[in-house]
Amino acid sequence: MAIAPRRIGSRALEGFCRNAFQKVGMTSFHSGLAAKPIVAANLRGVDSHGVALLPAYIERFRKGEIAVDAKLTVEKSEGGAMLLNGHNSFGHIIAIWAMERAIKKASEFGCSWIGVYGSNHFGMTAYYAMQAVAHDMIGIVMTVSNINTMAPWGGLDVLLGNNPLAIAVPAHRAHPVVFDAAFSVAARRKIHQAYAANEPIPEGWALTKDGQPTTDPKEALAGILVPAGGYKGYGLAFMISLLAGALTGGTFGKSVSNTNVGHLFGAIKIASFTDPQSMKRTVDRAVGEMKKSRPTSGETPIRVPGERAGSTEKERKKNGIPLAEKTKEALRRLANDLGIRNVFG
Amino acid sequence: MAIAPRRIGSRALEGFCRNAFQKVGMTSFHSGLAAKPIVAANLRGVDSHGVALLPAYIERFRKGEIAVDAKLTVEKSEGGAMLLNGHNSFGHIIAIWAMERAIKKASEFGCSWIGVYGSNHFGMTAYYAMQAVAHDMIGIVMTVSNINTMAPWGGLDVLLGNNPLAIAVPAHRAHPVVFDAAFSVAARRKIHQAYAANEPIPEGWALTKDGQPTTDPKEALAGILVPAGGYKGYGLAFMISLLAGALTGGTFGKSVSNTNVGHLFGAIKIASFTDPQSMKRTVDRAVGEMKKSRPTSGETPIRVPGERAGSTEKERKKNGIPLAEKTKEALRRLANDLGIRNVFG
Repeated sequence: MAIAPRRIGSRALEGFCRNAFQKVGMTSFHSGLAAKPIVAANLRGVDSHGVALLPAYIERFRKGEIAVDAKLTVEKSEGGAMLLNGHNSFGHIIAIWAMERAIKKASEFGCSWIGVYGSNHFGMTAYYAMQAVAHDMIGIVMTVSNINTMAPWGGLDVLLGNNPLAIAVPAHRAHPVVFDAAFSVAARRKIHQAYAANEPIPEGWALTKDGQPTTDPKEALAGILVPAGGYKGYGLAFMISLLAGALTGGTFGKSVSNTNVGHLFGAIKIASFTDPQSMKRTVDRAVGEMKKSRPTSGETPIRVPGERAGSTEKERKKNGIPLAEKTKEALRRLANDLGIRNVFG
Repeated sequence: MAIAPRRIGSRALEGFCRNAFQKVGMTSFHSGLAAKPIVAANLRGVDSHGVALLPAYIERFRKGEIAVDAKLTVEKSEGGAMLLNGHNSFGHIIAIWAMERAIKKASEFGCSWIGVYGSNHFGMTAYYAMQAVAHDMIGIVMTVSNINTMAPWGGLDVLLGNNPLAIAVPAHRAHPVVFDAAFSVAARRKIHQAYAANEPIPEGWALTKDGQPTTDPKEALAGILVPAGGYKGYGLAFMISLLAGALTGGTFGKSVSNTNVGHLFGAIKIASFTDPQSMKRTVDRAVGEMKKSRPTSGETPIRVPGERAGSTEKERKKNGIPLAEKTKEALRRLANDLGIRNVFG
């Protein structure tokens, strides 16, 4: 019988991230902010956006590709609208701050949209949308991906990121309802995983660079990701590049880069429309209705958006976070490199 | 050689709609508003939402199912947020007015969200999002469909509409970029068309009521529409039911009905973020980039959202609107019933 690998508590993991960030020059306060969304991704089972990315983040700080001192300045502000410059700071910190602005603006003006340029990749989109939920608000967050993976529908040139959208709606007893998706059929990391495991990918995920369907992960990585829902996924990814890129001044399309990433953060104050408690009970009812549907098979339970992540979060908060051996090995090396305490056994 | 059927000018078609609406008691002013989005759908090639629906609208007015006197009252207003009661008026008129409110609010507060309940089906979603474009704003519109067609992902009970979302972004020289989609793979009307033509539907569009894939349009109509992008389309349709339904007080899910339809209208004032002229030139560039991509085949040109509808609109404004013989026949009957001038030859 295989022994389950030791899990790591979320506090220990946050502490490790903080130590790592401080070693490359971040203040204690900023490192505490930066660690939160990263470990939250692991807690919610979105391990691709969690501590597995820490070594790459540290590398970028060391190379001076991301500013260690987080700075966010107001470039424009009018009613519920605001444009912020992230000064090439760490995207996760910028996103937390920008969403705080969105919440403050919405508490005053009923709703808000905060545009950000000059930021970086910010990890799991849902984290920032969920900030709104504790304030009885709906959060809406979108960003331009810092890497292009998709072509326009009917085209061969990889000109679009699979720009994610997250929407978080508070519930009363149920988990907050949290939609968080990018608009390719499958995430690029899943194709990386198949490549590493020397396994084919399912049909319908990717095309070769010549536009032929492929199940070979190597050809897929050199090729084109297929948008979810065909031209509908292409259309949404393109619209998000206009909203989080063209409107904010972030890069997108052909000129997309690892820096000057653009985001858009929105909040809607429920009390401006209806009684929040009453709306949250309505959301509970809606969730219950979906879950009570007869299932197509006995195997897969019916879920609403964010439900599985919410359950995983509850379980991992209690029992700790299981990390892949490969991730732990990389983090042990990072601990050694930086001279910080290894918490991975 | 077949002679192309005579086309009908958009003004003549609007006049016909106005006459029909006035015959069932609508004021001249209201009938002018109501006609616009209907004929605009035909102009943009979205004939399913155009004058083909007029006989059904007239029937609902005659039965007293929709209030002939359009009335929209402010129930709540705070900053850029507002809740409106549509008093069971014609959805198209309510939607035009609500979007005008959204534009006014955004011009004052930078952005807005206007919730509406007590409305009806409003036709082509894109029309209202596009109202924002002339004001150098981005328009975002969503609604709960007045008929459920989809089940929760993994479920058998038809509990969700394929709730559409439209986003319109102004461009400089290019057509406005207009995304307008519902979140089923195929529209229900396409399945109706296949049924009428006694033809099978493509695989992947629908399931039987027992959850089995089907290409039989009759089984599909009695069954379940498949969401676009699988659980992603289900997730978006569910989120829109919360935003345009739970937040506004409109019905959705199990209790969805033909009345008390909920909508949500948003506007974003570009000038609150950046220079509108500069942003519109950026949008032009983005459109050009996509269109310059190498195509997968020589047959299908690469398009951006709203481009085909924009071209069709330009062409039909000039040459008139071609209507299906079946539609013309129904409208001739309507003209006869109502005692208004038949413009369909």
